[in-house]
Amino acid sequence: MVLEPATATQAAAPAMPQLKDELDIVIPTIRNLDFLEMWRPFFQPYHLIIVQDGDPSKTIKVPPGFDYELYNRNDINKILGPKASCISFKDSACRCFGYMVSKKKYIFTIDDDCFVAKDPSGKAVNALEQHIKNLLCPSTPFFFNTLYDPFRDGADFVRGYPFSLREGVPTAVSHGLWLNIPDYDAPTQLVKPLERNTRFVDAVLTIPKGTLFPMCGMNLAFDRDLIGPAMYFGLMGDGQPIGRYDDMWAGWCIKVICDHLGLGVKTGLPYIYHSKASNPFVNLRKEYKGIFWQEEIIPFFQQVVLPKDCTTVQKCYIELAKQVKEKLSKVDPYFDKLGDAMVTWIKAWDELNPTVLNGKAT
Amino acid sequence: MVLEPATATQAAAPAMPQLKDELDIVIPTIRNLDFLEMWRPFFQPYHLIIVQDGDPSKTIKVPPGFDYELYNRNDINKILGPKASCISFKDSACRCFGYMVSKKKYIFTIDDDCFVAKDPSGKAVNALEQHIKNLLCPSTPFFFNTLYDPFRDGADFVRGYPFSLREGVPTAVSHGLWLNIPDYDAPTQLVKPLERNTRFVDAVLTIPKGTLFPMCGMNLAFDRDLIGPAMYFGLMGDGQPIGRYDDMWAGWCIKVICDHLGLGVKTGLPYIYHSKASNPFVNLRKEYKGIFWQEEIIPFFQQVVLPKDCTTVQKCYIELAKQVKEKLSKVDPYFDKLGDAMVTWIKAWDELNPTVLNGKAT
Repeated sequence: MVLEPATATQAAAPAMPQLKDELDIVIPTIRNLDFLEMWRPFFQPYHLIIVQDGDPSKTIKVPPGFDYELYNRNDINKILGPKASCISFKDSACRCFGYMVSKKKYIFTIDDDCFVAKDPSGKAVNALEQHIKNLLCPSTPFFFNTLYDPFRDGADFVRGYPFSLREGVPTAVSHGLWLNIPDYDAPTQLVKPLERNTRFVDAVLTIPKGTLFPMCGMNLAFDRDLIGPAMYFGLMGDGQPIGRYDDMWAGWCIKVICDHLGLGVKTGLPYIYHSKASNPFVNLRKEYKGIFWQEEIIPFFQQVVLPKDCTTVQKCYIELAKQVKEKLSKVDPYFDKLGDAMVTWIKAWDELNPTVLNGKAT
Repeated sequence: MVLEPATATQAAAPAMPQLKDELDIVIPTIRNLDFLEMWRPFFQPYHLIIVQDGDPSKTIKVPPGFDYELYNRNDINKILGPKASCISFKDSACRCFGYMVSKKKYIFTIDDDCFVAKDPSGKAVNALEQHIKNLLCPSTPFFFNTLYDPFRDGADFVRGYPFSLREGVPTAVSHGLWLNIPDYDAPTQLVKPLERNTRFVDAVLTIPKGTLFPMCGMNLAFDRDLIGPAMYFGLMGDGQPIGRYDDMWAGWCIKVICDHLGLGVKTGLPYIYHSKASNPFVNLRKEYKGIFWQEEIIPFFQQVVLPKDCTTVQKCYIELAKQVKEKLSKVDPYFDKLGDAMVTWIKAWDELNPTVLNGKAT
């Protein structure tokens, strides 16, 4: 496979963009969004929510023709007041503020160093279109289908798949992958500086119930109504002892909550072309505590049990925050602070997203 | 993809066939083995164990140049005596007799209607070579790696994968897939008679711990030392109320035992080209009880717990047999008989495969 991004994206654009009024694209950034030029045929029909990280006095240029709203740190502070403390600063974890202010059912989030990938035939991959497909068809977390996603064209459930499970469950999360620069940790980056991902695996699959996975926030879509309040990217970056675990944290939380609530998480297609490896030395500094801590955090999430009365994402998340404080504070006092921030996040989410019952906000 | 089997297999054959003296190829059949011609460059270095099903007076022709032993029903009866009752007749489940008489560490089993597949570049796929690769590198059942098998060339563990789990566990089973005719049940065959699998998914992955899958016996390899005694294909065919669940039964059993013993099960590559759909009407007759029963069998296997003192495959399997009799006999008296046959199978296995301690068989 020739490893370069696609250029002829216009030709691959759909005539009718799906979910045009039901999906927001959330982009965290510190720079001008020239990368949008390449995505224009695919993204222009949609509304963008840009979360500007770092110095709020800097102007972020957005190519003309895109419909967007942009929030910098001053905006976040103004909108959330003291609750703004739960939104990270100087870290792409700030993107979750965009999930919170969106009024749409679906979110697609992408990093600004991600370009359009090509499939093996050379065609530009419309990543957003594939995420929408993934989200709109069911997941199958209770039994593994050896031909992968049974809902794709040309596939089905294989012999021996229980018929009672073929309806599947609603899909809450679609996790996409990356060609070119793989999402490696700093030690692996240091050891394999030249490794590139050239393998296009033409599959989408449901991550089975009870199995955790490393969720990367670079190319990710989800259903806000189903799982939004759990998509908190934690406390990272400025003033925190850790970075680059924002998406991992969200991934562990959403997976145990999806498992508890009977929702699905898919991974695989679509690919984006990841253009630039981040600095492994800087990454190591951000990550090294996480590399220790994950050895205790992952067993915690593998064993966590949510009580039956946790029937909403919010209730699950508050319970999880409580257990994080109880069980992980002994790893580091940071987790006590993180547990508090998880509660603050839910309060802020509920303020910005009041439940409407009979036309009356509650 | 052009859907036809590969022909230029000679060119794709390796100079040094791996595990030449440590692997047997087991083929159940009722017909002449002309299909071996196509596999010659890949299979000829290995020893074949042919299990002839049906009428023992019929002669099975094997193309010249292959090193093989052949067992028909008379041979099985002579070797096992009364214990031959555990080996199915008039069903490809009889293949497991071949697993039992083998003296090698590894088994590859393949159906006689499976030809050599082509990869997307048109190259003939050496299925056996890929199975050996799968078996010789570790599995990762405790956490999902989003770039699939981290031990393949050009892949690794992604960011957020716990370092303590990167050693992996020994791989006991490698489950391969099928291009052209997919392995569908009779109802799906009836509804989608023209569906062909044309999607070449370039991935191998570990089926996570705690997740069951529908194991197909058409293209399957395993480590006899690690899991052999659990690879029993049950009572099917002649005199039994059910067929076409032989490999499924083995798949459920090996998966819970692998999970208990900390062994890995992989699925994905290699593909074979499956040439011929079996008759869906005949299949429906064989399968229909299984379609009901699997709705109770699968929850049974999902919940089964093996006690800690089950430290060998044999002990696990005897315990499983006991639980099958206790919990599934209420579904149908067949399971009482099957539980007994599982015990007979282990007795026969141990007779043919005595443990050698200090040079003395026990």
